[in-house]
Amino acid sequence: MADGPAPERADAARNREAILAAALHLVETRGVDCVTMETVAAEAGVGKGTLFRRFESREGLMAAVLNESETAWQARVLSGPPPLGPGAPAYDRLLAFGHSRLATNLTHARLIAAAGRPGARSAAAVSFANMHVRYLLSELGVSGDLLMLATAVLAPLELVVLEQQVTREHLPIERIEAGWDDLVRRIVGA
Amino acid sequence: MADGPAPERADAARNREAILAAALHLVETRGVDCVTMETVAAEAGVGKGTLFRRFESREGLMAAVLNESETAWQARVLSGPPPLGPGAPAYDRLLAFGHSRLATNLTHARLIAAAGRPGARSAAAVSFANMHVRYLLSELGVSGDLLMLATAVLAPLELVVLEQQVTREHLPIERIEAGWDDLVRRIVGA
Repeated sequence: MADGPAPERADAARNREAILAAALHLVETRGVDCVTMETVAAEAGVGKGTLFRRFESREGLMAAVLNESETAWQARVLSGPPPLGPGAPAYDRLLAFGHSRLATNLTHARLIAAAGRPGARSAAAVSFANMHVRYLLSELGVSGDLLMLATAVLAPLELVVLEQQVTREHLPIERIEAGWDDLVRRIVGA
Repeated sequence: MADGPAPERADAARNREAILAAALHLVETRGVDCVTMETVAAEAGVGKGTLFRRFESREGLMAAVLNESETAWQARVLSGPPPLGPGAPAYDRLLAFGHSRLATNLTHARLIAAAGRPGARSAAAVSFANMHVRYLLSELGVSGDLLMLATAVLAPLELVVLEQQVTREHLPIERIEAGWDDLVRRIVGA
């Protein structure tokens, strides 16, 4: 820890959490492109100067929001309400997982662009999603190479694929969801 | 055409084709990272100065080779020998297509990196692959939303997915191919 930054004071950490929660809420309700440093500062009840001292720039804030959003989404998968969280049949959880991941990835595509890190992609996020789908496939009694099948289930939800479909081909989300449901049905053999 | 570059003279065009063919051959036999401007010049029988005048840099050459490779691959799919080309049963063609696309994409990943264009991805190449898979799925009598199913067939062959599996997880190509074959089997219902 000798070379690391000094630990945040408790109130600074709370302040940071409040800002990220406000920014994430704005991103999810208004869309990334409508969220400015001013609106985040107002929503979080802090000065604009505080925001810039903490995150340096809109890019820096958006990178932190991206991280916060992924963490919040993983928490909903692991312990949120069903059918995304535990307590629903595995097939329902798998469908809820795909639809939720689709929506989250579309938001993340905008956040990655706003963070100025094109192509940024967390290996930990990929591993989490793959592990969860493998677990659900095994609960469903699917046999085969589950690592490969989970990869096949998740691949159409990749940002590059979704951006092609949504931004270039203007396909409605409902059609992408229905196509993904059909893929899952064929893979699971339900 | 008023703003475009002057048309190449016929011998300059032949020269360019010879250089690209030599570079592509070297890339496919030795691997992208072992191909230098010197080896390409020697293989093509031209001076190194000619190479730099034509392509400006190794990055520029690799970008041109990427384009050449995609074009050559599409030609093999459309009119090359079976089972990738016409003349084999649709299911065999689909499997050959996937394995060939997998190998081509792995080469392209290195070319894109060498061309200094991370994330470069041609919309035309995506459309070509999707159209071809839709055609084969319809030949196989698969019913459903074929655009979505073709996307699901192709998504695990995306560079970001392959790079995760090959570079980070060190999975053998044979396992990736077998997993993809299983996916196709489940989607086609064979």
